[in-house]
Amino acid sequence: MKEGRKRVVIEGVSPEIDGGLFPVKRSAGEKVVVEADVFTDGHDLVSCLLLFRKEEDLKWEAVAMEPLVNDRWRASFRVGQLGRYRYTIEAWVDRFKTWRQDMKKRVDAGQAVAVDLRIGEQLIEEAAASGEGAEVEALRKRVAQIADTVDQKEKITIMLDEETAELMGVCSDRRFVTIYDKELTVVVEREKARFSTWYEMFPRSCPGKPGVHGTFRDCERILPYVASMGFDVLYFPPIHPIGVSHRKGRNNSPSAGKGEPGSPWAIGSEEGGHKAIHPELGNYDDFDRLVRKAREAGLEIALDLAFQCSPDHPYVKEHPEWFRWRPDGTLQYAENPPKKYEDIYPLNFETDQWKELFAELKGVVLFWVEKGIRIFRVDNPHTKPFLLWQWLIGEIKKDYPDVIFLSEAFTRPKVMYRLAKLGFSQSYTYFAWRNTKWEITQYFQELTGTQVKEFFRPNLWPNTPDILTEYLQTGGRQAFMTRLVLAATLGASYGIYGPAFELCVREPREFGGEEYQDSEKYEIKSWSIDDPSSLRDFIGRVNRIRRENTALQSDETLRFHESDSDQILCFSKHSEDFSNVILVLVNLDPHHSHGSWVNFPAEDLALNARRGFQVHDLLSDARFLWHGTKNYIEIDPRVSPAFVFKLRRRVRTERDFDYFM
Amino acid sequence: MKEGRKRVVIEGVSPEIDGGLFPVKRSAGEKVVVEADVFTDGHDLVSCLLLFRKEEDLKWEAVAMEPLVNDRWRASFRVGQLGRYRYTIEAWVDRFKTWRQDMKKRVDAGQAVAVDLRIGEQLIEEAAASGEGAEVEALRKRVAQIADTVDQKEKITIMLDEETAELMGVCSDRRFVTIYDKELTVVVEREKARFSTWYEMFPRSCPGKPGVHGTFRDCERILPYVASMGFDVLYFPPIHPIGVSHRKGRNNSPSAGKGEPGSPWAIGSEEGGHKAIHPELGNYDDFDRLVRKAREAGLEIALDLAFQCSPDHPYVKEHPEWFRWRPDGTLQYAENPPKKYEDIYPLNFETDQWKELFAELKGVVLFWVEKGIRIFRVDNPHTKPFLLWQWLIGEIKKDYPDVIFLSEAFTRPKVMYRLAKLGFSQSYTYFAWRNTKWEITQYFQELTGTQVKEFFRPNLWPNTPDILTEYLQTGGRQAFMTRLVLAATLGASYGIYGPAFELCVREPREFGGEEYQDSEKYEIKSWSIDDPSSLRDFIGRVNRIRRENTALQSDETLRFHESDSDQILCFSKHSEDFSNVILVLVNLDPHHSHGSWVNFPAEDLALNARRGFQVHDLLSDARFLWHGTKNYIEIDPRVSPAFVFKLRRRVRTERDFDYFM
Repeated sequence: MKEGRKRVVIEGVSPEIDGGLFPVKRSAGEKVVVEADVFTDGHDLVSCLLLFRKEEDLKWEAVAMEPLVNDRWRASFRVGQLGRYRYTIEAWVDRFKTWRQDMKKRVDAGQAVAVDLRIGEQLIEEAAASGEGAEVEALRKRVAQIADTVDQKEKITIMLDEETAELMGVCSDRRFVTIYDKELTVVVEREKARFSTWYEMFPRSCPGKPGVHGTFRDCERILPYVASMGFDVLYFPPIHPIGVSHRKGRNNSPSAGKGEPGSPWAIGSEEGGHKAIHPELGNYDDFDRLVRKAREAGLEIALDLAFQCSPDHPYVKEHPEWFRWRPDGTLQYAENPPKKYEDIYPLNFETDQWKELFAELKGVVLFWVEKGIRIFRVDNPHTKPFLLWQWLIGEIKKDYPDVIFLSEAFTRPKVMYRLAKLGFSQSYTYFAWRNTKWEITQYFQELTGTQVKEFFRPNLWPNTPDILTEYLQTGGRQAFMTRLVLAATLGASYGIYGPAFELCVREPREFGGEEYQDSEKYEIKSWSIDDPSSLRDFIGRVNRIRRENTALQSDETLRFHESDSDQILCFSKHSEDFSNVILVLVNLDPHHSHGSWVNFPAEDLALNARRGFQVHDLLSDARFLWHGTKNYIEIDPRVSPAFVFKLRRRVRTERDFDYFM
Repeated sequence: MKEGRKRVVIEGVSPEIDGGLFPVKRSAGEKVVVEADVFTDGHDLVSCLLLFRKEEDLKWEAVAMEPLVNDRWRASFRVGQLGRYRYTIEAWVDRFKTWRQDMKKRVDAGQAVAVDLRIGEQLIEEAAASGEGAEVEALRKRVAQIADTVDQKEKITIMLDEETAELMGVCSDRRFVTIYDKELTVVVEREKARFSTWYEMFPRSCPGKPGVHGTFRDCERILPYVASMGFDVLYFPPIHPIGVSHRKGRNNSPSAGKGEPGSPWAIGSEEGGHKAIHPELGNYDDFDRLVRKAREAGLEIALDLAFQCSPDHPYVKEHPEWFRWRPDGTLQYAENPPKKYEDIYPLNFETDQWKELFAELKGVVLFWVEKGIRIFRVDNPHTKPFLLWQWLIGEIKKDYPDVIFLSEAFTRPKVMYRLAKLGFSQSYTYFAWRNTKWEITQYFQELTGTQVKEFFRPNLWPNTPDILTEYLQTGGRQAFMTRLVLAATLGASYGIYGPAFELCVREPREFGGEEYQDSEKYEIKSWSIDDPSSLRDFIGRVNRIRRENTALQSDETLRFHESDSDQILCFSKHSEDFSNVILVLVNLDPHHSHGSWVNFPAEDLALNARRGFQVHDLLSDARFLWHGTKNYIEIDPRVSPAFVFKLRRRVRTERDFDYFM
């Protein structure tokens, strides 16, 4: 029989993902707010501690949990270092706290309390009888003091005072403490896991000269351009040798013409595989140099992990056991019947040599980590086993907790969430296809208003080389601005595929599809980045706003507010201490001006709505005085797609002048 | 490293209470509908089985799960026997199912399929190569047949046909099957755990003669009265000897006058404790006889388990170690400071002899179980340790799975839910204090529309000897009818404390309180059960409706519907197969007539609203023709508090006559 005297129940702990099977995520410096239902039988009071430690530490730190309502308790701790933290809860029936509460009621009711006073004394004596440390010593002094006090009233005063309560809080009898039966985990990553601004670019298009294959050296020259727009991650599609067999030509044609460069995702040729560099881009030295130059410009280079092979990949010869072979002796290419992708061979993760394959893929990641790369965008992770990612990310992060993995999965929602639970730091989302007010509100409430927020960090992309949405195709330049503001303010992390984005490239290959006409995936482009209609400056302004306002650097506080127009989306974010409050109003219609009353509960955001406050549009620098919770706005997309208001508490009135009064 | 080739994920299983820590509840014959998120990486198809077994059986039974949307799968099984069942899920990547789907697409696209056909043949050959049983034998014949078939078209036909699919479904490769990592439990109880109608009565008031202490023999005479109202459980407050020390007098006065009987909850005297019978009620033979007679009348007797002692209880002398002693050598009485309950000594469950105490209390239950009692109403279970109940109920149900425990806990919601999770078959609720439409809707949606329904079976009491609600005090006779209909139709289990209820006794001891004036807890009452204003017949009619309509015998299907009056509550229940649909409309205002449009989605309940249907009020026998989803009703509480409509599908029209057409 279990110990029957452990009377306290701890349940309903949050955050806790799938019963503790997966960790929650935080970035260094963030808080973990832990809640639980804690209660016991009868009328006794309980005390409750949140315990936490760095995984490798042996000793727990403790913080007292405070009761909310309905047997819910809460406390929090801050995670300072990268790596893994553990937390759990312990609670016990607190006999002295119960005695103290009852005693106050007895005294108030004027009852005879001699016997109950003696009970309290006994509790204190017992607590002081054993153990060591400053508190026990102090408690022993208290015991003597109480014993020496003859006057009952004085005795009561000493026994009910705060000091006795505090000492008893530390020394009280915890023989029957209940410890929550799980240790839960927090994975702590660096700030960029939470707040990052990505720019995707094909290095081979760098020179901006038709038909000229760019090099890493060329890329150096474009770094100032990317940095000037305020990005901090520069992500390259695969930089490895590209296969020749079945190479795809312009606009995904089944065979490439002479001199066509092929898709960078068809990885591997005689020149090497996933650890090699495409010779036309340069060599390892060029790469190292670019990584360094980028860092100097405030940019971190992210590489693509696309675990698949072209027919010419060295693995095919060296490790035929890692592929699926067809009965006719040919290799199984990628398929989604009846479609065939003959330039790509998927790896066979059900091979008997799966352990060697897993190890090799880990080796690929380590190779680039050792070359200084700390961010990876993982191509189609949902077509590889979940266990591969759980293992691989865990292994890498053991030695390199600063490595960030972005999951490129546009697949079924539960698959995407699973990948996030398994360890991906960030994830692509359905943002590209959420355009209406209802869609955006629903989706972002799911992402940030449910426990999904504990393990899934959205990274919002209005476009990618694969995705030119209908909204962008049809909405003109304003649509690009609208989607940029949405991505950059709804998400602490977002990215664009440029220069196609800032140049508002929007011709689809076919009506109803999302592929670009003359997609950069299959050819070298020459972009006119100095085009005067470029959104470059606008993007720079938006990214500066993000950098200067901590409210926009996390998704934790995102809240939507009412507006009476279906075209006006209204939401806010704020910093932990409310010193920075950002209110965003976006006109979702790229074609027409819309006005709306918005209902903004300023009081909830620590603003005195009755005194009035200033809203300062960081995009246009315009300032408005608002009063109360309902205010009217109008947004003309031909002028600006949105207001990004910084709220300022202080509105000057005549009372601010000396001669008032 | 774990097996990396187990590619299927099983998560989000329901029902699953607190990560599988507690069982779900069903009554014999009910279904357990199990759902889970099941998916794998990539595009392969998965197959999925729900496994279940009686706990003591070694072999699982399996039923194929069917995909819903968004990677959600579902299957169900029916629990036939009392006791415990286990269930879990297994799933695997189904290579043949995937091949078959792809093959169909290839054939439809007119592709060359020779190699893929060979891949399918290999899969079938592999499956047929090992194992035994009828299916493997049949599959071997298929292999031969396929090999003998020369024509490719014919070969495809055989390989894609249903029989091959079925055989491969049974024989397919499950080397890398994922088994859900928990076995979940269902506790199966008898039907009365789900559907029961309780009548609480003080046996000592049976004779109906002022000042005369009733006996079990007297009780026999009242059985037909209780049975005629349609009850099936007759619950007695404690029947044990009542303490003399500090005995409470009339209206809870601190000391009883001469001849006053005391409260039955002050258990124990020189004449015995929890296993003894109060001598004035009779002896064991009388008790046995009453239990038998009651059963003959269709009534099961339920006893009260109140684990507390009067100062005269034999335990006090025999087991002083089971109580808390005060420093002055006196026993600790029950308290809620500054209130004192000096006629009651709580047991000290933190005693070093807690194991002996637990065992003794189990002995008390077993004693009455062996006397034929199978239903216990547990008094204040929330003031005893949770672990006591979990252990005690588990122990009793091992040998007597037909024993039902009702938890009398009016305490904080999480404590009530925890008691239910630990094993109580039924629970008291906050129903007594939920009177408005909003309150009732909110509360019952929580009880029946969330996972609470999986472990918490509400038993609704409009009154108890402790609870005379303000609504009943002020609403007149109609209020009693309203609350009765609500309890009897919202809840598959409900009870009343009679005869006070049917006689509409409603004088409180003090304004603002809920105690009865001259409460039966402290005195013998003489009830005029033949009073013509008694609700006896009305109650009999309502209980007959409950017996005759399976829809009302479960809470599973409870759904609220819109009505435009805040005083008209509208809800429905239906049988599993929709053959019995009950629509209840209650006027919550006991004083005034109210009319309302009600929006009843008949189509959802398998009725053709466009054809029209009949609603038959089982209370008044009136019938109305309804059409569409919106219909108007009016309820005058002076006539009847409610409509309890049985829905009849068939409305006769001219088409039903021979000469039509």
